[in-house]
Amino acid sequence: MMEQAQLSTEMAGKVITCQAAIAWTANAPLSIEEVKVDPPKAGEVRIKILSSGLCGTDLHILEGKLRVPFPMILGHEGAGIVESTGDSVTSVKPGDKVLMFPLPECRECSSCLHPKGNLCLKENVLSPNGLMLDGTSRFTCRGKKIYHLYGTSTFTEYTVVHEIAVGKIDAAAPMDKVCIMSCEVPTGFGAVFNTAKVTPGSTCVVFGLGGIGSAVVMACKASGASRIIGVDVNEEKFPRARALGVTDCLNPRKLKKPVQQVVVEMTGFGVDFAFEAVGLIDTMVASLESCHLSYGGVCVIIGAAPSDSQLSFDPMLILAGRTLKGGILGKYKTRDSIPKLVTDYLQKKINIDPLITHKLPFERINEAFELLQGGKCIRCVLSF
Amino acid sequence: MMEQAQLSTEMAGKVITCQAAIAWTANAPLSIEEVKVDPPKAGEVRIKILSSGLCGTDLHILEGKLRVPFPMILGHEGAGIVESTGDSVTSVKPGDKVLMFPLPECRECSSCLHPKGNLCLKENVLSPNGLMLDGTSRFTCRGKKIYHLYGTSTFTEYTVVHEIAVGKIDAAAPMDKVCIMSCEVPTGFGAVFNTAKVTPGSTCVVFGLGGIGSAVVMACKASGASRIIGVDVNEEKFPRARALGVTDCLNPRKLKKPVQQVVVEMTGFGVDFAFEAVGLIDTMVASLESCHLSYGGVCVIIGAAPSDSQLSFDPMLILAGRTLKGGILGKYKTRDSIPKLVTDYLQKKINIDPLITHKLPFERINEAFELLQGGKCIRCVLSF
Repeated sequence: MMEQAQLSTEMAGKVITCQAAIAWTANAPLSIEEVKVDPPKAGEVRIKILSSGLCGTDLHILEGKLRVPFPMILGHEGAGIVESTGDSVTSVKPGDKVLMFPLPECRECSSCLHPKGNLCLKENVLSPNGLMLDGTSRFTCRGKKIYHLYGTSTFTEYTVVHEIAVGKIDAAAPMDKVCIMSCEVPTGFGAVFNTAKVTPGSTCVVFGLGGIGSAVVMACKASGASRIIGVDVNEEKFPRARALGVTDCLNPRKLKKPVQQVVVEMTGFGVDFAFEAVGLIDTMVASLESCHLSYGGVCVIIGAAPSDSQLSFDPMLILAGRTLKGGILGKYKTRDSIPKLVTDYLQKKINIDPLITHKLPFERINEAFELLQGGKCIRCVLSF
Repeated sequence: MMEQAQLSTEMAGKVITCQAAIAWTANAPLSIEEVKVDPPKAGEVRIKILSSGLCGTDLHILEGKLRVPFPMILGHEGAGIVESTGDSVTSVKPGDKVLMFPLPECRECSSCLHPKGNLCLKENVLSPNGLMLDGTSRFTCRGKKIYHLYGTSTFTEYTVVHEIAVGKIDAAAPMDKVCIMSCEVPTGFGAVFNTAKVTPGSTCVVFGLGGIGSAVVMACKASGASRIIGVDVNEEKFPRARALGVTDCLNPRKLKKPVQQVVVEMTGFGVDFAFEAVGLIDTMVASLESCHLSYGGVCVIIGAAPSDSQLSFDPMLILAGRTLKGGILGKYKTRDSIPKLVTDYLQKKINIDPLITHKLPFERINEAFELLQGGKCIRCVLSF
């Protein structure tokens, strides 16, 4: 840590030249190149990334499904050490271990001030413009401006993040594990604990058994769900899903009836809680239709659908008594809650280890994307 | 009552010939004609109707917006006296004052057995076939089979209803008032108290200021809402709405921006609770978009949309943190709860009087429909 503090003093206020994975365009491999990272401006923090998770949303962006500007540095599940801070930053200092969040918490807007709100209005997270709040970027590569992702951009040795999206964590935290607590863990756990509020003895169905879906399964099991039906088109995910708590696995492509009809028949009249962790309209409708029409019957949308898509269904599905809910990052207020979740992990109150199945050095990021795309991993963590 | 009991004894087991308002087809006035009402079969109750409300759903059916078979006897907000009972009926007896509900409560299905379920699965309320549970009708007119509506059909001097849709009420209940507690009152009150759970100090918007919308407004006020925005295209409804508790009235046709945008601007970032009591897709989407995107932000669908219509919106509206909910008849278990609401009314714990603005004799039912269609009344009650 002493070494780190010295480093910080030397580099503070200067441009850092380092390696980053650039997405020059959608549908192409990332290119590891030399980038220049500007010093942090007022209210900003420059962070040396130690580890980063690779989330399905990064993949969807690279596949061109979500509208963002290119070229961009992707990645939004980062753990690192503060290298330097801009003016007026008070909550972290150089040398602090931190997580950076794809959702800020300004503590000033109507969402942040409300006890139940978490979608901070300071930044338009729902339709990201790829820029810092002052409308500029901190990255350049080959003389070109490179865009930020969700105010984080973690596929780089150094990044710049707004203080309102940085949370100081316990110095003992293993960075190659807790990086996934920036997004995957709170998104999955919070969908169950905060949004759906799964009750003991209840029946659940989880659409999508990737990273978020796996976290959802763990949380459903921890909540005492009596039956957890897992749905995925990739059967390679089934053994791991069963190990985490899934009681029944369904591959919609191998069923003779629509999967929602099978779920309804398996459970009598539908599940108490359904989770959509895929990000497709069809699975959103299937999730809603899998819920019991009257009691409970809560469907939580977690996946981000492709830009411009419309969710369309018979309103009678709602009128009957079902509930359709959502919540970014599991409805956690990021800076308030996530560092506490890290401490809970260190104190073994929660477990996240089964969610990390692969580790690769940063340089092999394109292999990590292949693992994710093929459903070979739950999470692959990159080490820098 | 003695007279009624004698009457019952005389007529029990026999076909009753009486007057009823027949809807021979959609988009035509009702025709008051002589109908034959069969005796109740096992598990059924024949009821002499004393009063009936006229609900927006009756109007929508008459306008051809909801798919039902014709010819039909409409009406589903009935208060009456049991004339006779079929075999195995134990919960009511001839002479009892009763309400009949458009939603049964069998106390045996998974919805009824669940503490939170109310959409009894014994009958397909969501897509009514116009027949009793044994697949036949109890009404004939001019030799033709006449269909039932929602197992009730109250626009007739006598009707036959399943015991599971009949609730005995306090003998002191004024029938020309409590008839609207069969549907309007629990639907509106329950949307607020049971489905949305409106909190003190919250902001609300109510789309549609007819009967249900007016009950919603009263319940929002009773729940301590600090601001209640009422939306309707008929400004004649505004003075009554203000008297019930609406703080701001909006006519979407007179606004330069979409009404949801105006509601969001009026409240900062959207309301805590939105209620759709119209039954149109456009107002359902406007209600959802009127909600705060992150905290609270609960939109309750109350109105039944035209058959085959699809509710379609950007799923990001949900992902952001909003909740879309529904519930038939305000999520009340009808037989368990509504007779208690009647007692609450008699004990002045709740007030329903402002919801009844007009009364007409049954024979003038077409005038009552005109009052409803023109937005001239909240509820017009028919007396027999």
